[in-house]
Amino acid sequence: MKGAEKMSGSEVRRKAKTARMAAKKLAVAEEEKKNEALEAMATALIRHRDRIFSANETDLLQGEKAGLPPALMDRLRLTRKRLEEMGEGLCQLRRMPDPVGEILDSRRREDGLRIEKVRVPLGVIGMIYEARPNVTVDAAGLALKAGNAVVLRGSSSASRTNRALTEALHRALAGTSLPEEAVQLVEDPDRQAVHELITMNGWIDVIIPRGGAGLIRRVVRESTVPVLETGVGNCHIYVDRSAKSAMAEEIVINAKTDRPAVCNAVETLLVHRVWAEKHLPSLCEKLRQQGVQVKGCSRTRALFPQADEAGEEDWETEFLDLVLPFRIVDSLEDAVEHIDRYGSRHSEAIITEDDTAARTFMRGVEAAAVYHNASTRFTDGSQFGFGAEIGISTQKLHARGPMGVTELTSYQYRIHGTGQVR
Amino acid sequence: MKGAEKMSGSEVRRKAKTARMAAKKLAVAEEEKKNEALEAMATALIRHRDRIFSANETDLLQGEKAGLPPALMDRLRLTRKRLEEMGEGLCQLRRMPDPVGEILDSRRREDGLRIEKVRVPLGVIGMIYEARPNVTVDAAGLALKAGNAVVLRGSSSASRTNRALTEALHRALAGTSLPEEAVQLVEDPDRQAVHELITMNGWIDVIIPRGGAGLIRRVVRESTVPVLETGVGNCHIYVDRSAKSAMAEEIVINAKTDRPAVCNAVETLLVHRVWAEKHLPSLCEKLRQQGVQVKGCSRTRALFPQADEAGEEDWETEFLDLVLPFRIVDSLEDAVEHIDRYGSRHSEAIITEDDTAARTFMRGVEAAAVYHNASTRFTDGSQFGFGAEIGISTQKLHARGPMGVTELTSYQYRIHGTGQVR
Repeated sequence: MKGAEKMSGSEVRRKAKTARMAAKKLAVAEEEKKNEALEAMATALIRHRDRIFSANETDLLQGEKAGLPPALMDRLRLTRKRLEEMGEGLCQLRRMPDPVGEILDSRRREDGLRIEKVRVPLGVIGMIYEARPNVTVDAAGLALKAGNAVVLRGSSSASRTNRALTEALHRALAGTSLPEEAVQLVEDPDRQAVHELITMNGWIDVIIPRGGAGLIRRVVRESTVPVLETGVGNCHIYVDRSAKSAMAEEIVINAKTDRPAVCNAVETLLVHRVWAEKHLPSLCEKLRQQGVQVKGCSRTRALFPQADEAGEEDWETEFLDLVLPFRIVDSLEDAVEHIDRYGSRHSEAIITEDDTAARTFMRGVEAAAVYHNASTRFTDGSQFGFGAEIGISTQKLHARGPMGVTELTSYQYRIHGTGQVR
Repeated sequence: MKGAEKMSGSEVRRKAKTARMAAKKLAVAEEEKKNEALEAMATALIRHRDRIFSANETDLLQGEKAGLPPALMDRLRLTRKRLEEMGEGLCQLRRMPDPVGEILDSRRREDGLRIEKVRVPLGVIGMIYEARPNVTVDAAGLALKAGNAVVLRGSSSASRTNRALTEALHRALAGTSLPEEAVQLVEDPDRQAVHELITMNGWIDVIIPRGGAGLIRRVVRESTVPVLETGVGNCHIYVDRSAKSAMAEEIVINAKTDRPAVCNAVETLLVHRVWAEKHLPSLCEKLRQQGVQVKGCSRTRALFPQADEAGEEDWETEFLDLVLPFRIVDSLEDAVEHIDRYGSRHSEAIITEDDTAARTFMRGVEAAAVYHNASTRFTDGSQFGFGAEIGISTQKLHARGPMGVTELTSYQYRIHGTGQVR
């Protein structure tokens, strides 16, 4: 065991250090070279698709044997369409502007000293994620576009698929002037490997966990490397007293049913009592017709007795499923207070015809994205025009909301003098 | 003991939660109100100076009894001048633009959805620092200007001074429309109080440690709240083969002797062998005349035998004193490699007449600030034109280098719709 841990340690450390060397080269790589590499990576996914699908087939078989739940099996499954989408994502990145080298600020002091603030890559990104193999390709592409190397630690259930994908990316990079070491896959299944990765200060510049709440909590707790916390979305829609009923219905149904398993789906509905008295039963009924299990507080159930009982636990839950608890509130302030207490600072919406109420809500609610009269489902890198996203940050430091290429950069002050001293 | 810990827990938790309530009010406070508060705080420092000086006197007496080293005693000591400087800092902040509410980006989608990226406060800042009482006032002022509340945990050796300063700030805030709870001082001397503060995710948005390497390491290791790592400065100057000797001498002497105890002072000198052969003895001699202990690698000592022996340990040390180890290198690449290995990513300089060499160095070195032909001493918030600084970040996430008011903000996406769904 001790020996195994030591071996595990050496794989992670070796790969992180190799990535660091590659990052130095990538940091000064020209835009054109990076774009060529992205194109080669996209091509390689198609060229090596047989090998990739066959690896995925084995992972799926193993998953079936291990009794993985259907939702997980679905995430794990690579289809021709999904592989093509990964390739398109890389091509989209190719067309985006290179953020590295952008002059963010420049000032000249009276003594002639010129202080430039220049955008630079973050360096080495440690990515820890579950199941979805597309993260392997997305993360590699986004990191590379921003001049970063990446150390990937995927789920063991997708290990063969991830290896096949990484091999394809390596072959692509081998044909370019960029280092293929820019993409590192940690294959050690030991949990200790994760711990080692997230405590490699000086080698890894940032850790991005993507997955369930348990994974994210563990990384936040154990990591000494700075973390970009992503993803848990306990999102609310507050239907204000002046909301138009048709608009409220359309938005709520979209936010709940369009794709219930994602983090920007709505998880609790807060309804002003005046609106509720008129429109709540009809909204609940329509949700039920869409296959949604409607739950509710006692006031909700007084208006719509078919609702199941909802309480404390429901307010705290990210269902990721066709379940929606309702809570009737007496005021906008009560809605904000509920969100303050239970929200995960991801996406929050108000539906109202009252602009003052909208402004109060949007300024009073702490979340990466706040909406007035629109679905929470828009919190997404490609919807925001970022091309792709490496995750959705729910913390306030560095980046908030969808994180694209720009969010994978830092800056450096470059000071040009002619002998100045203090 | 158990009881005491519990009590300690409740003080920190109570104060952090009170700060959080205050932060919600501050986040929507008008610029004018914040500026009035900053002015009132500056006035209060002068009005209550007798009480502040008397508290400081008691801390100094206690410090003497406890045998605090002279450097620490000096940092602890409040003089009339230092108190006035704190007040001036607050007035400077008053004159700076309010960062909150700035529209950082705005795009309208084809479906009419308008996505605004707006600058907002971070929320509640946890500040953990040693000795210097000016941090109490600087942090409170910077935080408030950016719309944040702050929880301060100073050194126990400055506890009376910090309390007197905080009381003055509270009296000032009590006369304004802003909540005096915006500034919270944790008085519990137990180390456990720090641990509690840095694990209050959801209540504290960021932890900023300011102090020695030990404090910073502990905070980085234990904190589950995102950290802005500050300060350790193992800075280098690399004197390239083409450097002008007069310029090199002036810059090196300034960077070492102007204020040796600060983090932007130079700690190791790297010298190209060709330059060294001609100019190293003269530079070493001049440093000695300034009271600097010159140390060196074997090649340095061959050229300047009076140098003491330097080795591994010296390359790793942030002396914060009049000591300067020299190392002769064969190339710019060797210099960059040395900095990669031993540097703390704070400030690094090259002195050269060769612009290509300067560019290679500045792009190849990982540091918050890289200099060409200027002293490392400029890495400082007020030198950079930020008015004041809450610390100098040596990490790459969120902020790098001197952190002023802007660095104490985050952003939020505000999305304005007319019923859009996906």
